[in-house]
Order: sequence, then structure tokens, then C-alpha cells
Amino acid sequence: MNETAGKLYVMGVGPGARDLMTVRAARILSELDVIYTPTGKKSTKSLAHSIIEEYLSPKTEVCTYHFLMKADIAAKQAVWDEVARALKEEVANGRKVGFITLGDPMLFSTWVFLLQRLVSQQMASPSWLEIVPGITSFSAIAAASAMPLAMEDQTLAVISCTASEAVLEQALLNHDCIVLMKVYSRFPLIRDLLQRHNLLEHALMMADASLPTERCWRNLATLSLSENERMQELSYFSTILVNKNWQLSR
Amino acid sequence: MNETAGKLYVMGVGPGARDLMTVRAARILSELDVIYTPTGKKSTKSLAHSIIEEYLSPKTEVCTYHFLMKADIAAKQAVWDEVARALKEEVANGRKVGFITLGDPMLFSTWVFLLQRLVSQQMASPSWLEIVPGITSFSAIAAASAMPLAMEDQTLAVISCTASEAVLEQALLNHDCIVLMKVYSRFPLIRDLLQRHNLLEHALMMADASLPTERCWRNLATLSLSENERMQELSYFSTILVNKNWQLSR
Repeated sequence: MNETAGKLYVMGVGPGARDLMTVRAARILSELDVIYTPTGKKSTKSLAHSIIEEYLSPKTEVCTYHFLMKADIAAKQAVWDEVARALKEEVANGRKVGFITLGDPMLFSTWVFLLQRLVSQQMASPSWLEIVPGITSFSAIAAASAMPLAMEDQTLAVISCTASEAVLEQALLNHDCIVLMKVYSRFPLIRDLLQRHNLLEHALMMADASLPTERCWRNLATLSLSENERMQELSYFSTILVNKNWQLSR
Repeated sequence: MNETAGKLYVMGVGPGARDLMTVRAARILSELDVIYTPTGKKSTKSLAHSIIEEYLSPKTEVCTYHFLMKADIAAKQAVWDEVARALKEEVANGRKVGFITLGDPMLFSTWVFLLQRLVSQQMASPSWLEIVPGITSFSAIAAASAMPLAMEDQTLAVISCTASEAVLEQALLNHDCIVLMKVYSRFPLIRDLLQRHNLLEHALMMADASLPTERCWRNLATLSLSENERMQELSYFSTILVNKNWQLSR
């Protein structure tokens, strides 16, 4: 890629509220030639797209693409190949190109599949690429619930609930604070694990942090959701925070 | 505390660059009656204070305090008690009060000592308190170095290098990605641990991320710093990122 040509700006837009992106990302968004943004379910506007709309210049071209969430790996790779190729071409054509991710681009983000296609792991970040960090969902949840995560010599583990039960249990045993992302359909399993290790009093769950639909459950011991409620209320963005040094109930 | 009185805004101002705070924090800073900000060494302006200056209204009163970093626990507690009392009083007097922390307020932040003095752990966040999340140093380092942290089913541990060697080693063994904060004088120990577990090729170190003084070391295997260089170059803000699935050198 021509190092003197355009530039790719990869921006974390934060957990959901429009004003929880950085001042830097807001400024860059207003200066772009083109922005690549994901579509949501059934070609609706994605959450990430709705967050950035007010910051975009009317002159900025908007390109949408659809990351398949449930397709096989070959179909997914074909999409990542195609988007990576398009981003490279935009930069080679000298344009200021934006790419957005929810939360932070380097933490549990699909953007990393594109990064792997654009940059060698052995090289420092090239001059045609700027990655702008974003607010993670767990920082937003800790702030909204006033429940801190690790401090001083305490340790923090961040894990997706799609990991194996053994990995989840090990993290609950070994760390002072644990962030369990993407709870969703695994809520019954996670609650059993928390109960077994006497951690229910030290855990809370939040869905849709910083959005108008935000919900917080501070007493998981007595929470009983029917299957139907779980499907409706525990969105993809539900997360459990555990802090062994913080006592939510007695 | 009177719930209808003033409000305390606790804001993470990010890792160091002025434009890596959130749009929300920037707006709130411009609307405050009073801001509490730490002094640096020898009563100089702290980094946190220098980040926010341009966003403050000239009408905002600035109150400085000094958190003792190396004092005994009783002396530290006296300062936290005093600052907590002052913040409570400001809110009771109906003022909009700001308090700032570097990075994120709920992750490895001294603010939590004040939170413990202001809010019961059993209660949801009160209406007179708003905590605004911030960009963590490790998100800024991952972005600047283009080295991702965990994705998909991978796990991440975040640990201060002040933890015991056993805790550090366990984290290096059990997780795909590890953030080692506050490396500073423990660099020789950490490098030995990384070498023992064949992780030097998967690790980088950054100091002063996002500041003009930012430095990145991508080849820790050949890095040799004299004691003197270590003291000068490895500031309090030096951090090592490890990603077992990312190969920095061969």
C-alpha cells in the first residue's frame, strides 16, 4: 500500500450512548471522505451507525456492509476479505476512510479480523492507519452501577460466556474481579457457577449499558427469568460483573 | 446527603492525550461550578489537570488536593476522608462538582477509595452521582501499537506488576492475553517470567501512551536497559501487553 496516500481511521464508538465516544473520534468522523458501517439485522441501521450519525459530515459517503454472525467460517472469511480489500483500495486512492466498531476496536472486536488482513504482526502500526480507542462496555457498566472493578494489587479477568465452563470457573476462582461478557442464553449456567462459588452477592448484570433500554439486575440470587423473558431481556449486550471485594447484598 | 441538591461528576479523562476523553466528559467539564483536581509532584500541575484545562469554563473554581502516594495507610486514609467530606459538602450546597481520574474511574483508580466513603455497596448509584467512564491505558496502547487484545473465546487478564510473582505467573499461564500494568522497577522480573514461558515474542511494552513522550518497545528479547535508563524511561505509566496469538518477532 502506498504510504503517502490516504488514511484509514478505525474508531471505537463506545458502548452505545452517542456522547461516550472520544473527542478525537467525533472530530475525525466530521472530516471523512467515506465511512464503512455495518448494517444491523435485516438491513436495518446498526447500533454503531446510529451512534455516529450526528457527527458525520453530509459530504461523507456512507458504505454499508453486513458481517454475518451465524454463517460458516468460509462465508465469514469471504466478507472480511472483501471489506479488507475495499478499505485498502480506498486508502490507495488517497481517501480519508473511517471504520467503526462498538466498544473498543482491540477488545473482542471483529475489526481484528480485518487488521490481520491489512497489517503484518511483525510491523509497528503503519502511517496510513490510525486506531482510536473506545470505551468498553464493562467500563460503562461499572460506571453506571457504581460497582468498581480491580484496584491496587487485585486482578481482573475479562471473558466471553461463550468460553468453556472450565475456563469460566477457573477465572471465577483465580481473580478478584471478573467480567463475563455476552451472557445471553448461558445465564442459567453462569448463575449456577456463581452460586457454587458463593459469588451471587458480589455480582450484578447489566444489559444495553448507556442506552435508553439499559437494565441492571443487582440481585442475581433472587432473579428468576422465564425462558421467554431471557430471550427478550438479555440481549447480546448483557454482561455480568463480579467483584469479590464488593458486597451487593447480604 | 440531600438527593435534590448538587451533583458529583466523576470523570475518567483517559490515558493522556487531551482528545481521548469522552464527548460527555468534555461537555460536563464546561458546565461545572467547581472541579477537584490532584496536584502532581512538588505541587506542579498533574497530568490529569493538564488534560482538562482547555475544556474548563473560566467561571469554574479549581480546588487542588494531594494524594500521598508513598505515605503510610493512616495518612492516606486521612486525605481520602478529607476529600470525601469536601465533595459531600459541595454537593449538599447544591453545586455541580467535578472529580477527575486518569484512565477509567472504576479500573485501578484511587477514586474507588472515595466511592467507598460516599456510597453504600448495597445501593444502586444515587441520583446525585454520575460516573463517566474513560479510555483505559491498555486500550490506548493496543490501538497505538496495533496489537489486539482478546477476541472471541480468548480471555484477558489485567494485573498490576505490584502483584506477587505467583499471581503474575498464573495469569501468564492461564490467559491468551495479559495486560501487565505499572511495570517500572519490576521489568527484570517480568522479562524473566516472559522468557521462561516463551512469551517474549508475543509481548510489547509502552510508556506514556498517547502523550508526546510515548515510547514503544516491540522487541523485549533484545531490550537491555541500564538501571539508570530504566528509572528514566520506564515511568509509572509503563505497561506490557501480551497476546499469545500475535507474533511480534521470530
